[in-house]
Amino acid sequence: MDTLFQALFEPRRIALIGASADVAKTTSRPQRFLRKHGFSGEILPVNPARGEIMGEKAYKDLGAIPGDIDQAYILLNGRGAIEALAACARRGVKVASILAGGFADAGAAGATMQDELLHIVRDTGIRLVGPNSIGTVSTDPPVALTANAAFAVDRLRTGAWAVVSQSGSLIGALLSRADARGIGFSRLISVGNEVDLAVGEVADLLVDDPKTKAILLFMETLRDADRLAHAARRAYAAGKPVVAYKLGRSDIGQELARSHTGAIAGSDATFDAFCRRHGIARVLMFESLIDVPALLVDRPPAKGRRVAVATTTGGGAAMVVDNMAMAGLDIAGPPQALVGWLKQLGIAAGDGKLVDLTLAGAKPEIVAGTIERLLADDGNDAVVFVVGSSAQFNPELAVEPLVRFARAAKPFAVSLTPAAEKSLALLTAAGVPAFRHPESCAEGMAVCLLRPTPQPVPALPEPGGAAVDAFSTGKASGFDERRAAGFFAALGVPMAKAIAVPDARRVAAAVAEIGGPVALKILSADIAHKTEAGGVALGLPDGQTAAVAAREIEKRVKAHSPQARLEGFLVQKMERGLAEVILGFRRDPLVGPTITVGLGGVLAEIYRDAATRLAPVDEAEARQMIDEVKGLATIRGYRNLPPGDVAALARAIAAFSALAHAAFADVSEAEINPLLVKRDGEGVVAVDGLVLLK
Amino acid sequence: MDTLFQALFEPRRIALIGASADVAKTTSRPQRFLRKHGFSGEILPVNPARGEIMGEKAYKDLGAIPGDIDQAYILLNGRGAIEALAACARRGVKVASILAGGFADAGAAGATMQDELLHIVRDTGIRLVGPNSIGTVSTDPPVALTANAAFAVDRLRTGAWAVVSQSGSLIGALLSRADARGIGFSRLISVGNEVDLAVGEVADLLVDDPKTKAILLFMETLRDADRLAHAARRAYAAGKPVVAYKLGRSDIGQELARSHTGAIAGSDATFDAFCRRHGIARVLMFESLIDVPALLVDRPPAKGRRVAVATTTGGGAAMVVDNMAMAGLDIAGPPQALVGWLKQLGIAAGDGKLVDLTLAGAKPEIVAGTIERLLADDGNDAVVFVVGSSAQFNPELAVEPLVRFARAAKPFAVSLTPAAEKSLALLTAAGVPAFRHPESCAEGMAVCLLRPTPQPVPALPEPGGAAVDAFSTGKASGFDERRAAGFFAALGVPMAKAIAVPDARRVAAAVAEIGGPVALKILSADIAHKTEAGGVALGLPDGQTAAVAAREIEKRVKAHSPQARLEGFLVQKMERGLAEVILGFRRDPLVGPTITVGLGGVLAEIYRDAATRLAPVDEAEARQMIDEVKGLATIRGYRNLPPGDVAALARAIAAFSALAHAAFADVSEAEINPLLVKRDGEGVVAVDGLVLLK
Repeated sequence: MDTLFQALFEPRRIALIGASADVAKTTSRPQRFLRKHGFSGEILPVNPARGEIMGEKAYKDLGAIPGDIDQAYILLNGRGAIEALAACARRGVKVASILAGGFADAGAAGATMQDELLHIVRDTGIRLVGPNSIGTVSTDPPVALTANAAFAVDRLRTGAWAVVSQSGSLIGALLSRADARGIGFSRLISVGNEVDLAVGEVADLLVDDPKTKAILLFMETLRDADRLAHAARRAYAAGKPVVAYKLGRSDIGQELARSHTGAIAGSDATFDAFCRRHGIARVLMFESLIDVPALLVDRPPAKGRRVAVATTTGGGAAMVVDNMAMAGLDIAGPPQALVGWLKQLGIAAGDGKLVDLTLAGAKPEIVAGTIERLLADDGNDAVVFVVGSSAQFNPELAVEPLVRFARAAKPFAVSLTPAAEKSLALLTAAGVPAFRHPESCAEGMAVCLLRPTPQPVPALPEPGGAAVDAFSTGKASGFDERRAAGFFAALGVPMAKAIAVPDARRVAAAVAEIGGPVALKILSADIAHKTEAGGVALGLPDGQTAAVAAREIEKRVKAHSPQARLEGFLVQKMERGLAEVILGFRRDPLVGPTITVGLGGVLAEIYRDAATRLAPVDEAEARQMIDEVKGLATIRGYRNLPPGDVAALARAIAAFSALAHAAFADVSEAEINPLLVKRDGEGVVAVDGLVLLK
Repeated sequence: MDTLFQALFEPRRIALIGASADVAKTTSRPQRFLRKHGFSGEILPVNPARGEIMGEKAYKDLGAIPGDIDQAYILLNGRGAIEALAACARRGVKVASILAGGFADAGAAGATMQDELLHIVRDTGIRLVGPNSIGTVSTDPPVALTANAAFAVDRLRTGAWAVVSQSGSLIGALLSRADARGIGFSRLISVGNEVDLAVGEVADLLVDDPKTKAILLFMETLRDADRLAHAARRAYAAGKPVVAYKLGRSDIGQELARSHTGAIAGSDATFDAFCRRHGIARVLMFESLIDVPALLVDRPPAKGRRVAVATTTGGGAAMVVDNMAMAGLDIAGPPQALVGWLKQLGIAAGDGKLVDLTLAGAKPEIVAGTIERLLADDGNDAVVFVVGSSAQFNPELAVEPLVRFARAAKPFAVSLTPAAEKSLALLTAAGVPAFRHPESCAEGMAVCLLRPTPQPVPALPEPGGAAVDAFSTGKASGFDERRAAGFFAALGVPMAKAIAVPDARRVAAAVAEIGGPVALKILSADIAHKTEAGGVALGLPDGQTAAVAAREIEKRVKAHSPQARLEGFLVQKMERGLAEVILGFRRDPLVGPTITVGLGGVLAEIYRDAATRLAPVDEAEARQMIDEVKGLATIRGYRNLPPGDVAALARAIAAFSALAHAAFADVSEAEINPLLVKRDGEGVVAVDGLVLLK
């Protein structure tokens, strides 16, 4: 076993630095909870004021403890915690955890103290959980090394799912909610401010944990994206689903996560993109963290989004169906074989998509026969049975025909219409995913059926010499429009034909070369907003008109910005397309390079209609992005509109996403706006773009 | 007391027609449940085969029963039920209910049988609940007149909320779910197929029920919109909230509701419009029917959407905040007075919007002092407190500082982070609205703060003579484009200037009168698609060009449709605007006349960006609709775009909505597309429109 894993989750000798004998104090809890839940190793309280604490020999300091120490839980605040960490490092403790907050979670002064922790970790190699960690718990063998009050429960349930949380208090909420459902965990760890050990590395350790079959994440931010990506991919390959709840869907939620954890925040769309790329199942309802794993563990991935629904309670099932449809699932009707079988039994299940057995069909053999036939049908990808009041009054009877499908070859779940805790517990114990609310059932099925599989990270070939040169030039001289266009063109994005000329006299010749109509733009590093300075003229049909326009531009710009140094004109071919697309590139502070495809124009901006992915993307993924942008329906073949060159658009997106290459690490943001999409077969062409450096 | 109300909810003498002594049969339940839950009146079983049933004297037929009968529950199927209803009518029974389904809910044959029920009701005046009604229940005094298995519970909780449900099985689900929460109901009624008594009339009866303080609706369709509207308005005035859950948000959900109940379906947007107009609080989560009333009953309507949030568990509160923000609520930060008070106590509640007392502030007096100060603050409209693990282990202690705010002057709710059923029960018993899930808390607060108040139904003055004449002409001769335009203009919608001319020779003169540029359209009742027939020319600058174009059109149309009778040309002023709007009018099968305002163009269609209201609307409501259409941001003053004439648009919408007048009852649908919105002060003008008659 990995020694870090062993020291973290299965320590045999635990030092409690700052342990208290006062049971009213939080610092007394780890010792009490360890013993209460049957820790069989050695507890080594450290407290200079006492020789004994709650029956255990106490030590003046770490140095007084003989032998190896697997893990130390530091229960001191501020400077005391820093000094204790240093002492742990000196003493050769493998892993230390710090309970106290008041570090980066508490403003600038705290952040400086947190830096001291980081230095100790870097200088000594000791591994650290926290600060601001409420503890690390295993259930088998039991190690309740935590100060979370929720562990005052009498019995710690074992289970096969591990929880990794950036919030300490939510550990308790998950524990209590799962326990109420008859569900236990293998491990629970609060990673706090993640100075050293963060979600990704811990998840990676858990992939190899034979006691863990699913990894549940409660996240406020993302500090080690690469490690988590690696862990998620390994977990997927190992058949261990990674399910994540993340705060910060709303702006105020992001703000809270930031202030609560001292973290920086990326956008919510980029976290979605991260999950999608690396095969993490993201849930939006908190309790889905508990509901969903049963649908994923030890099951092959679903093949599609079609759910068949059978019930004895039409109204209850209609709620489930309605919510599933709103969540993007399709409802599959019953196969003829089932309809015929039911007819023989005198049950008219209706001619709709819902198999409503009604009260007449609420017999165990009919229910079981129905589910069996639905599970055998190739016309659906999953089956849901919605139970009515029998679940409330006759749990054993209601559940009996269902439990045999716990190991069905495709996802099978039960939704309970009444409050029926006993049935819920029986189903859960039998391994049948069961839901208390129509809304949670719908979310669970959607997560299960629409769960992303890890996508290969597209290989990024070394950029060509032209792109490297164009980038160097822009970096050295500043990325004005011309240089940005040159760089994008070198990356493989088709750019509108353009010629830079030093003065108005050369404009007509440039138009002759390019062909009208053209746009004319003043070139000047000193003018940020060309249109406002009068520096742009559009739709000039020929060289003569353009030459006249150039002189007028010159006059206007000189009047507007007398000090500006003018470098001539950009003569650019005027282009038209069926649709205007915006391509955005950004290095997200959390997940790294991302690319966004959106529709151009003010309406698309208002509708926030865009698709975001981690960059780079290949053409196949670019094609998926195009399909996700609703407004691009206009070029995908909508009504009688002519289809656009979607293939060329996908190529351009993939080419643009090569900005993710390390060679261009100095690019913080880039944008092409607009990229015009022409008719199918006629390509795309970018008209304007910009590059921002770090 | 209303005699119908008394017979329905507080009957003293109940006949059970088709009662069974076999406890395995559903038809034995009403008698068992009545007695089990302490019905103190007379039960009169009718069964020709038995002299006694479960200890009660049984009667051969209705005629054998002496004295008045308040209500008869008919437990026979099909024809037996029809005959029993006729017998009830003859016997002078005030209200009859029919348990059996198999009527309009089961296809055409059933619908014919249902018509027989309707005839009996119409001919005799007997009142009918159902068919397909699982029963009618009161809790105090107890009348458990139902066949719903959920009433096998040992104890029927009393309460002050009434449930009216179109689904019988959902009655049981609500009963069990509420009971698990310590909540009881005053009445529960399953209205089934609503041949006679429907949701609206029952709700109207409940408005005057002194035992009922809130009316909860579970709906699959809407059969008596006017009655429900009336009831909802009276309920609002009486301070009794009406809360509705309705199936059919998704297309498949609509389909299910239709097939399940034999009902017709309107669109979901029109039901929303109905709720908004009449002050019904619509919930989207099923259990919100139980969660939400406590937030509304006996409380003044909220003044705004700003919620202040305090907590001892940052992570748990962040989930609530995140979900509330996603639901459209604003988060209000703490007042300085509170920040200062906490500082004195040594508690840094953070500088964000969330008041996080942390573990240090988890003392009853600090929690209570915080809530008190938040409730006193004018900077918020409601307060939420998010409890952590203390709710799980020390319910009495955790709840003690909260219950005193049960009767706060503004909405106050508690959200529980762990599973803490005991705390939930204590809070509920004390009258403090409490939530189990961050998602349900967010929905509850959103419903509470964004709850619609009933809007006055705008008075529709008698339409002017011009409108009536234009309508008559169109009705008599068919609404071609010209007549539709004339009708809309007479209603007060500005229409583009247009002149109809009998032939190409008169075109130039018409252009001279209107002023170019113009559009030219062939006039022919025989040509449905003018553009495809080559019958349209646009952007003609002057009379000469237009005359040439007219002759070309004539040639093209004759070649395309040699048989068509041509009636000349419509010469129409070409108009331009900042935005194109679509106005739609439709008589919805459920809620009646509705009006929809959307953005024109293919993108708006793709984004389904539109606002729907019951028609008519006044200018103020029209203005609200304009504000709701996201894409109309472009004319509301967006970035540096020129603002459009929103006032003129509102006037046009209100004028168009006068189609709702009874004088135009034959109009089933109408559309203006596009209505061009010009710069502020320059008005709007409609270019094209159509009218469809029934």
